This record gives sequence, structure tokens and C-alpha cells, in this order.
Amino acid sequence: MFYHVKELQYHAKPERPDPVFARMLQEVIGGQWGEISVAMQYLFQGWNVRGNEKYRDLLLDTGTEELGHIEMLATMVARLLEGAPVPTLEEAAKDPVINAILGGMNPQHIIVSGLGAMPSDSNGRRWTADYIIASGNLLADFRMNLTAESQGRLQVARLYEMTDDRGVKDMLAWLLARDTMHQNQWYAAIKELEEKENIVVPSTFPRQLEHREVSHVLFNNSAGNQSAHGRWAHGPSMDGEGVFKYVEKPVPFAPKPKLNPAPPNIHNTPPEDC
Amino acid sequence: MFYHVKELQYHAKPERPDPVFARMLQEVIGGQWGEISVAMQYLFQGWNVRGNEKYRDLLLDTGTEELGHIEMLATMVARLLEGAPVPTLEEAAKDPVINAILGGMNPQHIIVSGLGAMPSDSNGRRWTADYIIASGNLLADFRMNLTAESQGRLQVARLYEMTDDRGVKDMLAWLLARDTMHQNQWYAAIKELEEKENIVVPSTFPRQLEHREVSHVLFNNSAGNQSAHGRWAHGPSMDGEGVFKYVEKPVPFAPKPKLNPAPPNIHNTPPEDC
Amino acid sequence: MFYHVKELQYHAKPERPDPVFARMLQEVIGGQWGEISVAMQYLFQGWNVRGNEKYRDLLLDTGTEELGHIEMLATMVARLLEGAPVPTLEEAAKDPVINAILGGMNPQHIIVSGLGAMPSDSNGRRWTADYIIASGNLLADFRMNLTAESQGRLQVARLYEMTDDRGVKDMLAWLLARDTMHQNQWYAAIKELEEKENIVVPSTFPRQLEHREVSHVLFNNSAGNQSAHGRWAHGPSMDGEGVFKYVEKPVPFAPKPKLNPAPPNIHNTPPEDC
Amino acid sequence: MFYHVKELQYHAKPERPDPVFARMLQEVIGGQWGEISVAMQYLFQGWNVRGNEKYRDLLLDTGTEELGHIEMLATMVARLLEGAPVPTLEEAAKDPVINAILGGMNPQHIIVSGLGAMPSDSNGRRWTADYIIASGNLLADFRMNLTAESQGRLQVARLYEMTDDRGVKDMLAWLLARDTMHQNQWYAAIKELEEKENIVVPSTFPRQLEHREVSHVLFNNSAGNQSAHGRWAHGPSMDGEGVFKYVEKPVPFAPKPKLNPAPPNIHNTPPEDC
Amino acid sequence: MFYHVKELQYHAKPERPDPVFARMLQEVIGGQWGEISVAMQYLFQGWNVRGNEKYRDLLLDTGTEELGHIEMLATMVARLLEGAPVPTLEEAAKDPVINAILGGMNPQHIIVSGLGAMPSDSNGRRWTADYIIASGNLLADFRMNLTAESQGRLQVARLYEMTDDRGVKDMLAWLLARDTMHQNQWYAAIKELEEKENIVVPSTFPRQLEHREVSHVLFNNSAGNQSAHGRWAHGPSMDGEGVFKYVEKPVPFAPKPKLNPAPPNIHNTPPEDC
Amino acid sequence: MFYHVKELQYHAKPERPDPVFARMLQEVIGGQWGEISVAMQYLFQGWNVRGNEKYRDLLLDTGTEELGHIEMLATMVARLLEGAPVPTLEEAAKDPVINAILGGMNPQHIIVSGLGAMPSDSNGRRWTADYIIASGNLLADFRMNLTAESQGRLQVARLYEMTDDRGVKDMLAWLLARDTMHQNQWYAAIKELEEKENIVVPSTFPRQLEHREVSHVLFNNSAGNQSAHGRWAHGPSMDGEGVFKYVEKPVPFAPKPKLNPAPPNIHNTPPEDC
Repeated sequence: MFYHVKELQYHAKPERPDPVFARMLQEVIGGQWGEISVAMQYLFQGWNVRGNEKYRDLLLDTGTEELGHIEMLATMVARLLEGAPVPTLEEAAKDPVINAILGGMNPQHIIVSGLGAMPSDSNGRRWTADYIIASGNLLADFRMNLTAESQGRLQVARLYEMTDDRGVKDMLAWLLARDTMHQNQWYAAIKELEEKENIVVPSTFPRQLEHREVSHVLFNNSAGNQSAHGRWAHGPSMDGEGVFKYVEKPVPFAPKPKLNPAPPNIHNTPPEDC
Repeated sequence: MFYHVKELQYHAKPERPDPVFARMLQEVIGGQWGEISVAMQYLFQGWNVRGNEKYRDLLLDTGTEELGHIEMLATMVARLLEGAPVPTLEEAAKDPVINAILGGMNPQHIIVSGLGAMPSDSNGRRWTADYIIASGNLLADFRMNLTAESQGRLQVARLYEMTDDRGVKDMLAWLLARDTMHQNQWYAAIKELEEKENIVVPSTFPRQLEHREVSHVLFNNSAGNQSAHGRWAHGPSMDGEGVFKYVEKPVPFAPKPKLNPAPPNIHNTPPEDC
Repeated sequence: MFYHVKELQYHAKPERPDPVFARMLQEVIGGQWGEISVAMQYLFQGWNVRGNEKYRDLLLDTGTEELGHIEMLATMVARLLEGAPVPTLEEAAKDPVINAILGGMNPQHIIVSGLGAMPSDSNGRRWTADYIIASGNLLADFRMNLTAESQGRLQVARLYEMTDDRGVKDMLAWLLARDTMHQNQWYAAIKELEEKENIVVPSTFPRQLEHREVSHVLFNNSAGNQSAHGRWAHGPSMDGEGVFKYVEKPVPFAPKPKLNPAPPNIHNTPPEDC
Repeated sequence: MFYHVKELQYHAKPERPDPVFARMLQEVIGGQWGEISVAMQYLFQGWNVRGNEKYRDLLLDTGTEELGHIEMLATMVARLLEGAPVPTLEEAAKDPVINAILGGMNPQHIIVSGLGAMPSDSNGRRWTADYIIASGNLLADFRMNLTAESQGRLQVARLYEMTDDRGVKDMLAWLLARDTMHQNQWYAAIKELEEKENIVVPSTFPRQLEHREVSHVLFNNSAGNQSAHGRWAHGPSMDGEGVFKYVEKPVPFAPKPKLNPAPPNIHNTPPEDC
Repeated sequence: MFYHVKELQYHAKPERPDPVFARMLQEVIGGQWGEISVAMQYLFQGWNVRGNEKYRDLLLDTGTEELGHIEMLATMVARLLEGAPVPTLEEAAKDPVINAILGGMNPQHIIVSGLGAMPSDSNGRRWTADYIIASGNLLADFRMNLTAESQGRLQVARLYEMTDDRGVKDMLAWLLARDTMHQNQWYAAIKELEEKENIVVPSTFPRQLEHREVSHVLFNNSAGNQSAHGRWAHGPSMDGEGVFKYVEKPVPFAPKPKLNPAPPNIHNTPPEDC
Repeated sequence: MFYHVKELQYHAKPERPDPVFARMLQEVIGGQWGEISVAMQYLFQGWNVRGNEKYRDLLLDTGTEELGHIEMLATMVARLLEGAPVPTLEEAAKDPVINAILGGMNPQHIIVSGLGAMPSDSNGRRWTADYIIASGNLLADFRMNLTAESQGRLQVARLYEMTDDRGVKDMLAWLLARDTMHQNQWYAAIKELEEKENIVVPSTFPRQLEHREVSHVLFNNSAGNQSAHGRWAHGPSMDGEGVFKYVEKPVPFAPKPKLNPAPPNIHNTPPEDC
């Protein structure tokens, strides 16, 4: 169960309106790697944890914090949109500054949300739960979490470079720091699980059931062998279960398939060469 | 540029048709973590690499191999659908075996694809490029790749448990082994980059610009402090840049926000309390 | 900013597992009118309120409560999935009870989420922010909120009829009561705004600028005049601005349009009849 | 069954081309609250009405009219796109007026539709039936219809403010008036149903089966009690079934949940603390 | 502008309810090639025609007819759903006939639409305008129309085979005949345009500007030369502009690309090998 | 199974960067008719062919070639993005040339992909497998292929007109030529199948089972009879099975439908007029 306080985790106040940057900032609210993604991902993972209370708590701590990040960003976007011009377009076309704004802002910030933040990315595409995962396997999921914090921090860093507004930069500096922590924490949790299990997910599947003869082989399917010079092509494998091998000219292991004709009530094209 | 040979990388021949398992298997063709996802993700990452030919080659090697995995799975699905019953539904309802099949299979395997594989998941949802990423930052992307191979291998393992067909199991055992290799290889590449850069992505962003006072702090936003007992809550941080700190009762750092009214031509509700 | 406690707002414990009902219940988690929709909708509306602190508070109160409803339902789904059979499909086909379960459950509850709840509807379609709105106009938005609580309560009522599990029914009876309150509260807020403004949204747009001659006219575009006998076809209009009028045989007010040809560099089909 | 006449319900002729406004106007064709949404929503509701011929007729009257509104808007967009420049982009970059147009228009209006209207919103996102509902419960659905006409009229009002073109304004003034009528008519139909049933949907579900102790309670989940001062927090409830109550400090009613471990063939992380 | 009559273009009355077939039938309402697709596609193409009144009229004739087909199918689905069981699931699991129905039907037909038709396909995926096209080039679009009628008739034929209900078969026989006509009509329109222009779309683009040396060449990118024996590999080309040529071993025409590094403010991985 | 060489099928090198054109060019990578669509469509069709090795080979030849076209276009986009400005937006607003670029480019090319190509269209919408089809009926599918090559070449031609960059134009001239070939080849394959079968798909469905009385009738559902003057309205039908007939005033063939009430546990609005 959740509680809310009206105060923000951190300041979200720009020096001045900037509707174009408001559009850009939407990427880290409702984009693939935005705050809605991490909030919902951590909460669903947390609710689905079976035992492992330590991890459940960590997930719910962080998911709950991320809800507050959506709130900070939504507040910032709403303030950046204040003073967005709604001149007639004709007037705008004549004024280079206004037309730069209108050309670069998201028209839905006027027409649909009335100067409010949206659950969308920087191109106006609405957030979808296709972005997230909760698989029940914590190592698999923590790797996704580390990925999300890496991609997210990368995007915040790029946005930081695109503005001179000290208020915006101050808030982004906060988010960068929190993403630093979150990368650190998932990294620590991953190490713990990898040491207990193995680096290969799922570690509970019996390795003798897989085709072990190709479990540590790099097939050179793209001509040129620059990839032969990496750690992944020689020496003991990272999982401690074998030795890396490089196959310069990979060949097929199975013959050309031929499918049987479909029954007539499917109305496919009958084979002429059968 | 690509070339194709008609032979398969590995066998894709079931012992007998099984339209319900054909539906299940679609998850690892066109689902979030299916073979279309990894093929397209590695190829786009590879095409976008700037310099770093070793990594570019590795990405294109693997992406090209994954195209062949879509092919193997598509062939398997087409064969599992052979002999799918298209009785009238009335007949089916009376025969428990046929109704088990019709209730469990994907009707689009009859109506839309005519007993062919589809670029869809196990619920018939078409594949979308929302599943993938190529960010230009290789550490961020390789973490996504390791995630994809972890989630993918987990799903294949679950599918392996759901069938007794030795032909299907044989092919899944191949895919399990290849996913083992791919987890190993991205793991190796990640280690290499982490050692050269730092574990925090992007490593090029100057750390002094972020709010370092919260870069290694765990906020206990979900009551209960099981999470205080993890590695992430005490000791030196994983990135070597600080010491983990646990905040039992996190407080807001900024006041309650208040937004200004919108201009009249937006036609929002005017504030009654201004 | 948000806080979380591990306790649930209300009990979410079924008498026994039921993977088929788990699938059904997903509709009110991640479907169009599920709890993710109301939580996110109220929060975004609340964050975007400009002035009107009373409404902002009401929105954030309710949105925060709804986050806890997602949690209750996710917990219920996870428990309903316990003991979901993962026999081989071949075994299942032979046992009518197991095949009823496998035919009716969502395969992604096994393959993707590993017996966990998903941010999806009863057909496995992931939640999308296309379901929600925050327009900045509170009367328009509260009408959407009343709609959401009406559709949501309707779906919960239908689900209530489909199970005999007393634990499930107990939790649904809680949600039904909360939806009753939420319908009541948005109803009250709507009345308040309608009395202050007018029933027509947005009330700030000058009525003399619209084509008032058709502001209270029902055009009988579908033959048959049963609709002529409703309140909407005669008497003073609901907005107090006119008198309803019924037009039996509506006619076009403008001539047939004819578009000009496109320039050659568009490569459209050139008109043969110009 | 439908018939079509080539004449338009109302004029759709701009004074001059304006490709940027053409993009904006797409919002009310193929956006969430555009004319495709209301047309399809009313038609599906109408086709699904069981008995209640008066409402069926009203739905089909209005749905059929809305098809004509899509037509008017499509015609307007096609005309606004006439004369859209397809200079080379290099030329455009040098001419501030042309670049204002190119920066602000939708490139798919050139590349995909060849200067034609699209079933898309103002950001080029295609219309989806996720926007609409037909539930079989008319009060629930008429509330959605009233919402749609409220949001729709709001968007048209905002667009009206953004242009000086008298032809465009004239058509929008028509649509504003029709939305006025449609808000009036759904309002009237809602009153009728509310008086016959009750304001809580569905009214047929026995109230004694819900947890009545929380049917009229406002939980203050977001700190601060501005919401305590509304009509929804005291006095008789709107549905006449109770008295509103305000709970300043809401508490959980159920203990912390703990889920059982998954069976081994699911390959989740085994609990370490069981 | 449109008019509607309540009568149906053709009968839509099943002999008896069949909720499973109702689900199947949704494919040709709201699926990729269903009636919503053809209705909307023809109407948008028609509204966008510039000159060429003959084609505009044909498009609007047919689009308007297709609206009536959605209506027929929606009526049929609503009737097939009558008598759909809403027993408790527990009861259902014990009765093989009911469980066959519950396993095979779409749960949203109960929970969401209340026994009504939906704008969705046979897996419950909502219709999207991503399915359709109106490009302004009539030959390109009529080819899409012929495709749509071919795929659509194929699906109806498959559905015809899956039922014994004489009422359903009678309606499908009507739709099959209308699809026959529509294939005929688009075929005729295509011939007319091909004879006037050329078979290659767009015919207005000057052929000398393309790389004519590969305009009639088949590259054998997939090993094996069965494709060498088709009409497309030898003899005069179909467009009368050249001679087909078969290239057994295609080679790249351009060197390996190498991209320049990104600027530092993008925070990509810096190239180690530059 | 696939192989890759690093060389490109053809040159993909612009004279200079152009981030706005990079956005435009995305349409033919990840848009509805872009190269991902044709690659995936041909490969899935090829993998699903049952017998008919000649067509299977042709599909796999062409699908494999199209993979190389995605690569060429991705390379071109990456190069067009080189030198994309990431100034602060404030600086940009002051410089008309930079603001033209920022207003017209896709912000995700900076924030998300770090100057790399994306699997998206010109509005940033990600590719979806909803765009493609593989039905098992080759005539139906080859018609879709001819459509795809027609729409695709049309879009490339429009893009060709929008740039003066000789490097870009050179690559587009290559793609135009390949689309010419592909239109030719599907045209040839279609002729072959039409001559062997019939023009109506599926030809295997017995014509006497359809309602032949309307198999060659044009219903004039849109007033005005310009369409009466086409080949489709008189003379022998294209399929050689009848004579075209034009019906000036089409009438319904079936009475007004009336649906039965839903059972009470569905909680629909009870009919008041039953």
C-alpha cells in the first residue's frame, strides 16, 4: 500500500519556459527507458518475488522512489510548457523564434494535454508495458534493471548537454546521481547471485541436457575475423564450464527442410512440384 | 550484404504435429525476447558501431546467426502445425482431444497464416521494434544483450519442460547451448569495457557534475529494512567512487510544487483558489 | 514523493489456485479499464493541475490508493498461479481437467512471467498509455474518471460472477465498494464544476463563435425515428442555451468537394478528367 | 446498411494551404478523441444494443453523422496540404518560411500519403481501436460518450485558437456546435438512465455483496487534507446509499503477503530465506 | 455525408449460439484483412483522390458497402455470443463441453464487451490503422485493394470450412461472393491503369534516373538456383523496358563502411581502434 | 542459415551530413513499406512455402537481398547524422539554420540512438510485424509483395525529389532500380499463378458455394454514377465467370436485426422495451 506527500524528492524548477526542451524531456518520462518503465518494472518484479525478502524489499524501495521521479519530471515538463505560445500558426511562421518553438515542440502538449506532461516519449508515442519485464528469475531481471539504469543515465546525460537552464541541469544532476546509485545496487545484487549460482541464466537447468559441443563456440557468420581477437574467442569460458572456440567457416548441421502440403480446407497454393 | 543457404544451422523436426506447442513456441520467435529481437538488435547495433571493429564484427557475427535461428524455429512451427485439425468447431466440441487442441492453439495459425509460423508471440501479438535498443554506447547495449540472452534462455528452458517430443527437445537443446555461448560472450565483452571505463554508464560524463551526495545512497522508500542487509547498503560502492549509505527514513528535498495557470486560449479549468 | 508499506490495503488470498481465473483477472490489472489505468490517469491529472489544490489533492489521494489496488491484484494473480501445471502438453491433452486449464490459461504466465502477474489484459496485451487522458480541463477529465470507475466496476462485477472462490470474491467485494466510492466522488466533483461553469466543455469558449443554428439539433442520419422520442429531441436543451430540434431528413450543407491535382514531384496518379 | 452522398455535411474549404495546420488538424481525425473514435464507438455500441431501440437509434444516428465529420476533416486536410513545398531540404534550410513549414509539418504527408489525410493523430500515430469501448452497459458507455464529446470539443476549441484562416475557423465552428449538441444529448440520456437505475454502474449488482463499510469513504492517501473540504468528504453520498466519510490516516487492512516458491520446472530463483 | 438504414445488406443469423466461432469470426471484423480495414482504406483513398472522379466514386461505393459488412458481422458475433455460459470457472472445468467453450472463447467477450462484437481480431488485438494505406498513387493503392480482397476472401473461405451452422455459412457465402466482385473490380481498374501508364509504380519517375543496369536482374542471394527457372529470370521484362538477367553469384558493389566517431557530448563508446 | 559480408551491396555515402533528411529516410527503413517489411515478409513467406521450391527460392533470394538494403540505409542514416548539432536548445533558437535542423530532425536520433539508425519510420514509430503477411496462399501473398514494391518505390521516388545530395541520390537510384526489378518479378510470378488457377483467390474454393448472384455486381452505395462508366460495371467479368452488372439503387436484402437480452450475470442495461 502506498502513501504520497506533496513535497518533491528534489527540485524541479526551470529558470524559464522552454516548450521544445519539454518535448525532449518526455523521453525520460514515458520513453522506453524512462521513469515509468523503471517504476513499473521494479514494482511488478517486487510483487512477484517468491521468498527472497531482501530482494523484494530492494525492488519495492527503488520502484517507489521511481514513482517520485515521474512526479519530478512531470512537474518540470508542466513548468517548461508555461508560456508556450499559442499564437496563430500564420503569425508564428513570420517570427523565426516562435516558429523554432512551434516546429520543435510536440503539438499534443497544446491540443491534448493543455500544457501538461504526458505518459509519452519525445515523439509523442505513449508508454507501453512492452518495455518492461518481470520473469520470476532474479538474475535475469536484475540484468534488465542494470540495463535500464545504464540506458536511462545515458539519455539523461545527453539531455544535460542540450540545455543551459540551471534549474533543469540541477534536477538532471540529481537524476544522474540516483542512476549512479541504482547501477551500483543492481551490480552488487547481480554479483551476489552470480557467485551463488553461475553466470548463465537459468542456472538450474541441467547443463548436460544442452548441446554442450556448441556451448562455448563463436561462429564467424559475418566474414572478417576481427572478432577472433576478443576474450570470447579463446581461453576458458566465463562460466567456468569450458573453453572458448572460434569457428572461422561455420557450416549448417542439418539438411534443407521440405514442408508437407497443407490439407485442402486451408486453401493454400497446392504444390506443383510434389 | 547477406547470403543464405537452404540448409538449417541445426535440425528442426518434431516427432509429430502439436499445434498447441506450436503456439507456445511462437514466444521465442516473435515475443519480447525471441529470435527476431536478438537478430534485429545485434544487427542494428552492429551497423551503428563507430570504430571498434572488433565489437562490430562480434555483433554482426551473432546477429547473422540469430537470423538462422528464426528460420529453424519457423520451420519447426510449420511442421508442428501439420495435421492441425480444421474440423468444424461443433465436431471439435464433442471430442475432448480435438477440443483440447482447438482451445489451446492460436486460431490465426489456421485463419491468417495457413499453418505457417508468424512473427508473433504466444498470444498472437505481432513483434514490435519497441523490444530492442541500439544506443551507440556499447556497455549499455551489451548489458541489454546479456539480458536478452538470459531472458531468452530462461524461456527456452521453460518450453523444454513442456514437451516430450524428442525432436523438439533436441532443437531446444541446441538453442540452450547457443544462448549459453552468447551469455558468455557478452559477459566477456562487458568485463572488458567495465575494466577500461567504469561500471557506471556513461563513464564519460564528469562525475563532479552529478549530485554526488546521493550517488551511493539507498533510500528506504518501502517500509521494512530487509534491504539494509545487502551488499548495496554498506561498504565501498561497486564503482569505487564512494561508500554505500542506507537512509532509513527518506525525506523530500524540495517543497510542494504549485503550477501557474494556463493562458485562456488553452481552455483549461481556471483555478478557483488563485 | 511516495512511500510504501508492505501490508496490503485489503486481503488478496484465494482459497485455491486457479490459473484460468488468473488470466481473467488480468483484465482489471492491465486492461483498458484496469487499475494501472486509473492509477496513472489520476496521478498525471493531479501532477498537471494548475491551482485548484482541492482537486489536485483528491486526484493524488485516489491515484495513490489505486497503486495499492494494482498490488492487491498482482498478489492475487501470483497466488492463483501457484500450482499451475507445467506438465508436458501431451500429458495434458489426455487429462480433461489439465487440458481445460492449459487451454484457458495464458501461456505467458508460464513462459514469460514465471507464475507472476503481468501488466497485461486478459488476452495478454500489454498496458498502453493510450488508455488514459489528462487534458488540463477538469470537467472533461472527471467525466473520464467517472467513466473509468463505471467500466471498471462493471468488469469487476462480471468477474465476481465467474468464480466460487470465497477469497477471490472477498477481494472483489472490496474493489466493488471502492469503485462505488470513486463513482460517487467524481460524480460530486462533476456536479460542482457543472454548476459553476456549464455542462458543455469547455465552458470558456464563447458560444456565439460556434454555429449555434445546429447546437441543439438531432440529425436523423439512421432511418427510423425511435430516437425522436427521447428527451434529447424536444424541450429546452440541457445546457439551458436553446431548444432541442429533431431533423427527420438531414441534408448536406456543402457541395461535393473537388481536390486540385498534386504537383508532379509527388508522383500521384495524374487526373485524367481535368 | 449505409449510403453515401458526395456532398459534405458542411463546408471544408480553407482560404489557403497550411501544411503545418494540416498536421495539427490530424489530431481530431485520428487521435484518441478524434472523429474516427466517436464514429466507430457509437456504431459498435449501436450494433451491440440488446433491446432499447430508442438508444440504438440514437447511437446509429450519431455514429453515422460522425462518419461525415471524418470526411469533412479529411477534405480539409487534403486542401491544406495543397501547395505543400517539396523543395530539396537544402533549399528549405536557407529559407526561413519554408523551413518553418518543413520543420512543423508531418513528413508522412509527403512521403506516405502524397498530400492526403491520414487515419493518424498530430504526431503521425495511427488510430487504434484501443481508444474506444462498447460494454453492453449503456450508462457506462454514455458516460464514455459524454467524455469523448467533452475532450473532442476541447481539442477543437484549442485548434480554433491556432489559426486565422476563416475557412478553417468556419468549419471548426460547425464542429464545435455539433459537439455541443452531442454533449447535450448524452447528458440527457445519462440523466434518464440514472433516474431509472442509480448513479452507480452497474446498478444491477446487489449492493449488500460489496464491502459497504468502505463504499463511501475517502482515504487520504496523499498527505494534506485539502480534499477533506469537498462535497465528496461529508454529507449524504450522491447515490443516496450512505454518508461520506473522510479517513485522515488510512491504514492497511491486510498483512504483508508472502508468496510460495515456484516449482523447479519454472526455473525461477529459488528462495534463499525459506 | 452518410445515411444508414437499419436493415442489413444480407442475413446475419446463426442457427445457434457458438461463442468459440464468435471469437474466430472477429478476425474478419477487426483483423488485418477484416472489414474495418477495407472500409477505412477505401474511404480514405476515396476522400484523397485528386481528379479521377470515376475512381473516387468506385472507392466510395465500395467503402460504403464495407461499412455494412462490419455491421453484418457485428450482428452475427453478437448473436453467436447469446447464451455464452458465464458459469463459475470451477463448474466449467468439470464439464468438458463448457470447458471447451471457455477455453476457446475470448474472455473479453464476457468481461469487456458484455456479449457484443469488438473492433478486434481473433486474438483480441484491437484494430489499428497501421493495416491500411492511401498513398495518392492509385495503381499502388488498387494493388493493395486487390491484395486485401484476396487475403480477406481466403480467410472467409477458411472460416467457412470451420462451421456447420447453416446460418453462418449462408452469410459467409454472401461475403465470398462480394469479395469475388471486389477482386474483379480492382483487377479491372488495375488493368486500365497499367495499360495507360506502365506496370512499374510510379510510372512518372524518369527511368533514366535509376540504375538501369540492375533494373531487370535477379540476384541469387539464397544458394540453389530453382529460381533461375522462372519467367522472371529470362526473356523480356514484364515492363517492356529490358531483358531479365540471372546472377548466380552476386557480389557487393561497395566497400565495407566505416563510420566516424560521435562527438563527446553524445557519450557513445569512444573508438579504441581509431 | 545466413552469412554476412561487411561490404555493402551498393554505396551509401552522402556528400554531407543532413540530420533532417536522416529522419525522412527512416520511412523506408522502418516504416510500413520500408526494407524491414519486405525483408521479413519475404523470409516468412519463404520459410512457410509447402512444396513449390521455385517460389520458395525466389522469396528467399529476395528477402536475403532486402536484409542488405536495410544495412545500406542504416549506414546512410548513420552518416547523415554525423555532425548533427547538439548545441543547447537556447543557442539553437537563435540560429535559424540550426533551429531548422533541430525542428525538423528526430530528437531520438540524439537521445535514444546516439546518431544511429533506428528500426522506426519518419515519425519515430517503431516497426511492427502488423505491416506484413504470409498466408500460405502464394497468389494472395505475391499480390501483397507487388503492392509493397509499388508503395516502396513510390516513397523512394518522393525522397529522391527532396534532396540535392548526389551521394544520397545515387543510392536511391539503386533502390529505385531494384524495386523496378522486384515489381517485375512479382508481376511475372502473379501472371503464372493466375493463368494456372484463376484471378480470384483462393481459386480452390468451389464457386457454386458462394452467392453467385452477387459475384459480379457493383452496388452504387455512394450516390452519383461516375463508377458506372468503368470496365468493372459492364461486359464479361475479369475472372471469366460472369457478366458485370451495375445496381444504381442498392437495397438491403435482410430485415432489421433485433438482439436478445443478455443474461443478468452480464450486468448489461436491461431492455426497457422488451
